[in-house]
Amino acid sequence: MTLEILSTGDEVLLGDIVDTNSAWLCRQLMQLGLGVHAVSAVGDDIDDICRVVKAVAGRAELCIVTGGLGPTSDDVTAAGCARAAGTELERHAQALASMAGFFRRRGWELGPDNEKQAMLPKGADMLENCHGTAPGFKLAVSNCVFYCLPGVPSEMKKMFKDRVLPELVEKTGGRNALCIRRLMVFGLAESEVGRRVAGFEQAYPKIRLGFRAVFPMIEVKLVKSVKEASKDVAEEQMATAVTWVADRLDHRVISFEGLTLEQEVGRLLRAAGQTLSVAESCTGGLISHLITDVPGSSDYFLFTGVTYANSVKTGVLGVAEDILIAHGAVHEETAKQMAAGARRAGGSDWAVATTGIAGPSGGTADKPVGTVCVGVAGPDRLTARRFVLDAGSREKNKHLFAAAALEMLRRALAG
Amino acid sequence: MTLEILSTGDEVLLGDIVDTNSAWLCRQLMQLGLGVHAVSAVGDDIDDICRVVKAVAGRAELCIVTGGLGPTSDDVTAAGCARAAGTELERHAQALASMAGFFRRRGWELGPDNEKQAMLPKGADMLENCHGTAPGFKLAVSNCVFYCLPGVPSEMKKMFKDRVLPELVEKTGGRNALCIRRLMVFGLAESEVGRRVAGFEQAYPKIRLGFRAVFPMIEVKLVKSVKEASKDVAEEQMATAVTWVADRLDHRVISFEGLTLEQEVGRLLRAAGQTLSVAESCTGGLISHLITDVPGSSDYFLFTGVTYANSVKTGVLGVAEDILIAHGAVHEETAKQMAAGARRAGGSDWAVATTGIAGPSGGTADKPVGTVCVGVAGPDRLTARRFVLDAGSREKNKHLFAAAALEMLRRALAG
Repeated sequence: MTLEILSTGDEVLLGDIVDTNSAWLCRQLMQLGLGVHAVSAVGDDIDDICRVVKAVAGRAELCIVTGGLGPTSDDVTAAGCARAAGTELERHAQALASMAGFFRRRGWELGPDNEKQAMLPKGADMLENCHGTAPGFKLAVSNCVFYCLPGVPSEMKKMFKDRVLPELVEKTGGRNALCIRRLMVFGLAESEVGRRVAGFEQAYPKIRLGFRAVFPMIEVKLVKSVKEASKDVAEEQMATAVTWVADRLDHRVISFEGLTLEQEVGRLLRAAGQTLSVAESCTGGLISHLITDVPGSSDYFLFTGVTYANSVKTGVLGVAEDILIAHGAVHEETAKQMAAGARRAGGSDWAVATTGIAGPSGGTADKPVGTVCVGVAGPDRLTARRFVLDAGSREKNKHLFAAAALEMLRRALAG
Repeated sequence: MTLEILSTGDEVLLGDIVDTNSAWLCRQLMQLGLGVHAVSAVGDDIDDICRVVKAVAGRAELCIVTGGLGPTSDDVTAAGCARAAGTELERHAQALASMAGFFRRRGWELGPDNEKQAMLPKGADMLENCHGTAPGFKLAVSNCVFYCLPGVPSEMKKMFKDRVLPELVEKTGGRNALCIRRLMVFGLAESEVGRRVAGFEQAYPKIRLGFRAVFPMIEVKLVKSVKEASKDVAEEQMATAVTWVADRLDHRVISFEGLTLEQEVGRLLRAAGQTLSVAESCTGGLISHLITDVPGSSDYFLFTGVTYANSVKTGVLGVAEDILIAHGAVHEETAKQMAAGARRAGGSDWAVATTGIAGPSGGTADKPVGTVCVGVAGPDRLTARRFVLDAGSREKNKHLFAAAALEMLRRALAG
């Protein structure tokens, strides 16, 4: 099956956004064993969209289109597709009803601009949008089927999984299942991960191995396509392959279930029935934000103190002034006292603390940008370590520091 | 001038990488006042590349191609372009000399794979690569000029700036410039923004208007292409157009310079020489994380207390127990006391506080998921407001709550 992807929107051509939708769709289709023939992007222009849709229809059997379904005048995907199909837009009663329901559940009212979104090409099938207002649609142009999805990534992904994926699975012969394992790795560069698992293809020729950098982690994915009937056998083969990989990555695998560090830390705390507090300086609240992104985190998370000013490190966390004077804020001793202070203030079993220099300024010869001290306080321990981890930008450094702190906490929790 | 971008490489179509090269090139060209007509991607296949290059040559005057210039057998951009131009590859003496020089300076030796990289289409001009081994080239196919650059971003960017940019500046007569204005809007749905500025195209036919949802904000962009000589006049026209739009969006424009809420809050605090603390419950550290993402935020940000447990709201922030008993944690009075407590603990001029229910669980009939109370404490005020803002997921609700809190703080700061 010849398959293409088309994204619409001036924001792509103006370079305002990077087209992550297309990359995500390519990966999804790859997992189905469907190669994408070409990816293209056009602006919010009816003529351009019409021209490109016609060209794609002349060479592909299936095309997934994203973007341009919104309520404003620059959203013209439906109009461009209709023109390419030699038809017109018409008010689609089912689409309007679906949007009205979405609005009613939120206590909003439909406006005339939203009614524009219910104008679909004649003959199109509506694809319901459970996460937003823009309905998608499916339309045949010549011998090619176009699935037009919203540009908002969360809405696009949901609609793809709910409406497009099942049809593709059926088209490609039905009962194929996928065994997938995701190992999350922290503390090794992608090239080093690749080097360590060299030889995998020879050992397990029927399992596809993939790597993906999810900064600051590396996801190692094992994928095997199997017939539903033989799924148990495949699961067993997969388990030995996972062990093969994990042995070579040593203790750097932080989760065998695709969990992030904060999810794994939460799992360990919940299992132990213990609680956590956090003290942050350079990470500025990011650790706390990550921990509280996990639903149910209120069961184990109690308190974070983000203490930028030294006066607050002393006042709220009880860090001794003479430590700050003797060693400065970025030091193992400060990190220890911050962790102990957060544990005390929060009344929790555990605490983790960071103090460091995220940059771009503030570095010295002694403590360059990228220096971070992590402290961990627990029922029977108080430790600290210094790392130098410069990923090149303030934002990336904050993420790297947060991951280093969560990883040190994870190891302490795992005992 | 009709301009396209083409990226080559299986890694784009497999979804292994996100095509950031194209986005970067679009931005560069935009800044020159050159709109990109279309962006496309093809795999490492001579036939596919030849077909796409021919199609582009039929409709564009200039195309920038990235990728496929490497030493391995899957790098076939030169071969595909040569076939599209109806010519062949030949050993390019100057390219070979350039690569030999690059290797010699590093004490390396040229291998047979590298000699492949010196095979360029007959009639092509070589573009030297100062940062890597792969030489680029410039080739006319029909009436379209193709600039073929390496896929490695650092090499691509350097070659574009050194070799392509000067030629483009000359071609466009040098003096094209772009006037761009970015208005950031908070508190209106995209459809409502579009409705309010309807009629803009008629009032300002030469200014292009675009909308982009940057959750939870809407960016409204005004773009006008002008000759350098008349830039002042254009700036004046732009200023009246911006006023036209702003009048219709009322006080919902939070920045006329494309700033985010946290950047604008930082700008206001810095301008006033004042400081800030934060108390967070439901936002879990996100407000603090956003504020500290801004470089230099240590000049005005002092302290955040993320107080999930009621005992910590009392212990660290001094929220009265009887308030928590009488009203519960999610209440305007609690938000006020949290803000006042954070202001006191941090010793700052201002504080903002959130307490609410991000979901997915924890909602009641009285206080459904999406309920958030925001408190603001300042030198001469202590106020609180309740909002119900459900964006459908815990993560989105955290962002929406954080934005509502920053916006209430921004208005207080702006006086």
